Amino acid sequence: MATIKLNNGHQMPQVGFGLWKVDNATCADTVYNAIKAGYRLFDGACDYGNEKEAGQGVARAIKDGLVQRSDLFLVSKLWNTFHDGPRVSPIAKKQLADWGIDYFDLYIMHFPVALKYVDPAVAYPPGWNAPDGSGAVELSNATIQETWTAMEGLVDSGLARSIGISNFQGSLILDLLRYARVRPATLQIEHHPYLVQPTLIQLAASEGIAVTAYSSFGPQSFIELDWQKARDTPVLFEHGVVTAVAGKHGKTPAQVLLRWATQRGLAVIPKSNNADRLKQNLEVTGFDLEKSELESISGLDRHLRFNNPTDVSLFQVASEEYVLTSFS
Amino acid sequence: MATIKLNNGHQMPQVGFGLWKVDNATCADTVYNAIKAGYRLFDGACDYGNEKEAGQGVARAIKDGLVQRSDLFLVSKLWNTFHDGPRVSPIAKKQLADWGIDYFDLYIMHFPVALKYVDPAVAYPPGWNAPDGSGAVELSNATIQETWTAMEGLVDSGLARSIGISNFQGSLILDLLRYARVRPATLQIEHHPYLVQPTLIQLAASEGIAVTAYSSFGPQSFIELDWQKARDTPVLFEHGVVTAVAGKHGKTPAQVLLRWATQRGLAVIPKSNNADRLKQNLEVTGFDLEKSELESISGLDRHLRFNNPTDVSLFQVASEEYVLTSFS
Repeated sequence: MATIKLNNGHQMPQVGFGLWKVDNATCADTVYNAIKAGYRLFDGACDYGNEKEAGQGVARAIKDGLVQRSDLFLVSKLWNTFHDGPRVSPIAKKQLADWGIDYFDLYIMHFPVALKYVDPAVAYPPGWNAPDGSGAVELSNATIQETWTAMEGLVDSGLARSIGISNFQGSLILDLLRYARVRPATLQIEHHPYLVQPTLIQLAASEGIAVTAYSSFGPQSFIELDWQKARDTPVLFEHGVVTAVAGKHGKTPAQVLLRWATQRGLAVIPKSNNADRLKQNLEVTGFDLEKSELESISGLDRHLRFNNPTDVSLFQVASEEYVLTSFS
Repeated sequence: MATIKLNNGHQMPQVGFGLWKVDNATCADTVYNAIKAGYRLFDGACDYGNEKEAGQGVARAIKDGLVQRSDLFLVSKLWNTFHDGPRVSPIAKKQLADWGIDYFDLYIMHFPVALKYVDPAVAYPPGWNAPDGSGAVELSNATIQETWTAMEGLVDSGLARSIGISNFQGSLILDLLRYARVRPATLQIEHHPYLVQPTLIQLAASEGIAVTAYSSFGPQSFIELDWQKARDTPVLFEHGVVTAVAGKHGKTPAQVLLRWATQRGLAVIPKSNNADRLKQNLEVTGFDLEKSELESISGLDRHLRFNNPTDVSLFQVASEEYVLTSFS
């Protein structure tokens, strides 16, 4: 299995299983079957709401002798409402308890957005909006530095072997690197042929930060969420450029999309509820695309971002009118 | 003249004159003539290398009785090599001395990128690359917070009436607002129909930060720099959508592009070396585009950014190959 050596010496599998949108009802079985199929990295998060079930799948796989804990690379993420420094360690401990493990291989700041604390007894996972039902998004005053410093404490205390960031843009990464005592091991970003982000990837590479791509199939992930923007975008699985490459190599379009990313040095975390596709998605480092094929896929770039926190949740533009905002 | 009321109560002209790429030889005359034509805001920067000459134009206009200092809104910017806290006030004082004035109406952090200090005696303006001719870009360890805190000191000491930011992205703005004692009055961004950025503008609006658009004519500014990316992009002045609106209103394409921005609440800072166009660019708040016309121009959005510091200068992608960076 292909691995990426992180800047702290730890090895991370290049292909993992993403737990976003995996149903609670099927999550334990899905994780168990994925381990059986060969997956070793699971990418979870508080926000996905299925950490207990994922942990149950892991526990059963260990109990049945499929793997040991040390064979696995378990990833979770700090949600926005826990950015205040003193909240970080307690919530990481709760998440570890949910998983039934005593350390994360990687613990990631999910978004560079600090929201007001929500007690897990009131709402868990808390999501973007205040739990009062008002729909309000309430910011906290925690800086990224405060949050990162607290996350560094997780490494010191052994609760996380590596820490990382997600949904960060270039200049914010540069700023974090100014004060980071423990450098981020990974950067997780939306990445697919409609959002190639070569300069962000180059920046991460030059700073020794491994990049994990999410939403590798582009609009696919967001069609499930019933987003119009995703519906309006041509499906990548059916795109002529992708199907032509797939046909030539005798692979599925999904495998081509994942190989396009892994061959360029990125880690990927696809998910599937289908056993065959689960297996296929794992087989995406054993064949090579031609340079011209990589370029033709990169050429589909539209700078099209689906998961933009300042777009989706915080400061929603009511319509396409670009409503006039007058300051005078 | 249309003005924008900033979040600190000061008024800023909505249309100003941008000093980027104004030749040293003609700069003083250009500024003088622009004042004569009615311009009151001049958008300068250390990096433009023409602050002395701009100041000479201002001094002559005041001496000739065209304006008083208090009629003008003079803007300058902190260059990246002066981000270390103790460097901010001295360089602002040098820039004020170059202009021959004792306060800036607005002083802006030019880029959210801290570079290693370069003594003005060695190279001025210092630019992106180290002065040793190696081509290296050397980062400083100053955080954005350290730099912003020092800029707040300029307001305290009266060297700047307002302070602002430029080339900041959404999450970095949110982070700065967590620790800012003096909130940024303005955000200056690349903005044209190929890069509309509605969510960033919405974020600024919701936080009471006025937005100034630069490069309002899109690729035009960068064709002057002989950039291939700009040459490969259809000129906005000749774009059918723009020329149709211009024809209908009896205005020039440039005026339509500026009105599209100002009507949506943004400030603009075009430059021209031509007396007629100088005048025309100022007349861009006295007519209104239809809502459908605003939308048709916004519909040209390609998410196409020309001025990306992590693209242009710091972490240049050598080619379109997206060179494989392997971490293993």
